Amino acid sequence: MSRVAVVGAGMMGTALCYPIADAGHEIRLIGTHLDGEWVHAMAATGIHPRLGVSLPAAVRPFAVEQLEEQLRGIDLLVIGVSSAGISWAAKTLSGKVPTSIPTIFVTKGLEDKGKGELRPLLELYAETFAPNNSAETRLAGIGGPCIAGELARRVPTAVVFTSTNTETARLFQEAFRTPYYHIQTSDDVIGVEVCAALKNAYAMAVGMGAGVHEAKGGIPGPVAQHNFESAIFAQACREMVVLVRALGGNPDCVAGLPGAGDMLVTTSGGRSSRLGRLLGLGHSFADAREQLKGHTLESAEIVEVVGRAIPDLEHRGVHREQLPLMAHLYEVIVQGRTLSMPLENFFR
Amino acid sequence: MSRVAVVGAGMMGTALCYPIADAGHEIRLIGTHLDGEWVHAMAATGIHPRLGVSLPAAVRPFAVEQLEEQLRGIDLLVIGVSSAGISWAAKTLSGKVPTSIPTIFVTKGLEDKGKGELRPLLELYAETFAPNNSAETRLAGIGGPCIAGELARRVPTAVVFTSTNTETARLFQEAFRTPYYHIQTSDDVIGVEVCAALKNAYAMAVGMGAGVHEAKGGIPGPVAQHNFESAIFAQACREMVVLVRALGGNPDCVAGLPGAGDMLVTTSGGRSSRLGRLLGLGHSFADAREQLKGHTLESAEIVEVVGRAIPDLEHRGVHREQLPLMAHLYEVIVQGRTLSMPLENFFR
Repeated sequence: MSRVAVVGAGMMGTALCYPIADAGHEIRLIGTHLDGEWVHAMAATGIHPRLGVSLPAAVRPFAVEQLEEQLRGIDLLVIGVSSAGISWAAKTLSGKVPTSIPTIFVTKGLEDKGKGELRPLLELYAETFAPNNSAETRLAGIGGPCIAGELARRVPTAVVFTSTNTETARLFQEAFRTPYYHIQTSDDVIGVEVCAALKNAYAMAVGMGAGVHEAKGGIPGPVAQHNFESAIFAQACREMVVLVRALGGNPDCVAGLPGAGDMLVTTSGGRSSRLGRLLGLGHSFADAREQLKGHTLESAEIVEVVGRAIPDLEHRGVHREQLPLMAHLYEVIVQGRTLSMPLENFFR
Repeated sequence: MSRVAVVGAGMMGTALCYPIADAGHEIRLIGTHLDGEWVHAMAATGIHPRLGVSLPAAVRPFAVEQLEEQLRGIDLLVIGVSSAGISWAAKTLSGKVPTSIPTIFVTKGLEDKGKGELRPLLELYAETFAPNNSAETRLAGIGGPCIAGELARRVPTAVVFTSTNTETARLFQEAFRTPYYHIQTSDDVIGVEVCAALKNAYAMAVGMGAGVHEAKGGIPGPVAQHNFESAIFAQACREMVVLVRALGGNPDCVAGLPGAGDMLVTTSGGRSSRLGRLLGLGHSFADAREQLKGHTLESAEIVEVVGRAIPDLEHRGVHREQLPLMAHLYEVIVQGRTLSMPLENFFR
């Protein structure tokens, strides 16, 4: 039994408490300053309003005001904040937990360092959290297909824990695995994290097919625009291979849990799919964003970061022609162009 | 304008007539002895009953009795029969069309030559069609995500034409492409054909998730068993990589149209998905087959061929532990075992 702190009481941070609790640990689920309402609801009802299922008995929710107190004496740390909250988390936790505390990230995303250098958010975290001794940190990331609402319902799930430090990945694997939460380990942090970030953007692109079909008066079913969606999915896999390789990861992860697996689950109907559908229906991004107000659109954020970096990726041997899908998503999301999927430029 | 004969008036053979007609060719769509009813219906109504949309004007349907007559003077040949019909097609066409006639196959499948040698059906065709000069044949195969009912509705579709003879693949690419039918070429016949065959089996496995969910009283939606389905999809990609490599193809095709792309489209609700759902619901294969009587279950056929070959693949460096999903599908389909997806053996 370990004492585990989960910082961030959003859907994914909270959902991860289920296997951790079932694996026999005691959990302090600490909300950020944005999670007050959810913490309050969980304290009152034992249910996260967005998940809708009872928290395990071993999970105790706390508000951000109790953060410092509740971090005392923990054995393991889980960062469950959104990508926008990663700097806040690093600054807030710095000095409050030992540098070497094993820490695992639900948070996904890429930071643009300029000149085509895109790096996983856990590197950014390490620098801010332990500016003088970031090498001493023991950080791991999570990739692979995992819808929070399903994990909280104990649906069989397979994920990847990745760390440059094999021991850290194995430690979390041993600690968190349960009969329904299957954990593979990988030392390819860049591969796993680049896939985890990209999948939102590309799943959004796949979701455009449903909107295009609906715009033509079609109804959902086995005969719809699945040929079109699957062509986009396949092109997305190809572009993931190009990007993972260019950024220093191993492209083998694309034909597995972090790439195709996570992208598939993300097409099942979350925010990324909904944004894609709206764009497929013919709405501009500005219009679609308005309709999805109140939701973080990670898919659009990653398109902005990666699309902007395309010209700078040239010196890493990547040509714009290898990324026609991402380039067009950038035109639609950032430059306000009308959606017109360039299938003729795919698979060259 | 070329004169094209399409032999086999099933859904896929007939669907392919739409882009061929739109590309400006004249088409003789010739049914097999099993297609009489469909040919009759098309001659009477101009509509294939299973596709439900009007045939292009350039397509003329013929019964098998007119085969020999209608093969005269053709420029290009399309084989649209089912995998079970490939020997019939090779024997019937042998001597009736020139050996060197460019021929492209919709038919997908693998033949077990014994000792772990699984080979694409177009090799089998070549041997029977031109026993003394099979090297003179100009054969190509088609891979990638393509639901017949969508192609006939001119949904944007991207496919791969593959041939060991680059010129043959390019010839068909030039001849058949239209603004909605996008054609990539590949010289990796084994990779494309192995993926095309395997995808039915693995899409069936993905479909099990829906059955498992339903058996527990769940309803379809964004929170279902998508984590489970996506883990199976990811493992399927990994096993495709292993099998393509072992059989002499290039595993790069898995993260693209022939592998992940085609597998995705096949999960959209055809026979393979329906079989998977029934097995997921807890039915035995014998029971599920009874419920799907009258349908060719290509997914089960390929499980039988590939599963049986697993022990023989050992000398090609493939161990059973690398194919836990296929091995379990074989247990369920051929050996009558109860479905119990071995997620703990995936991703080792």
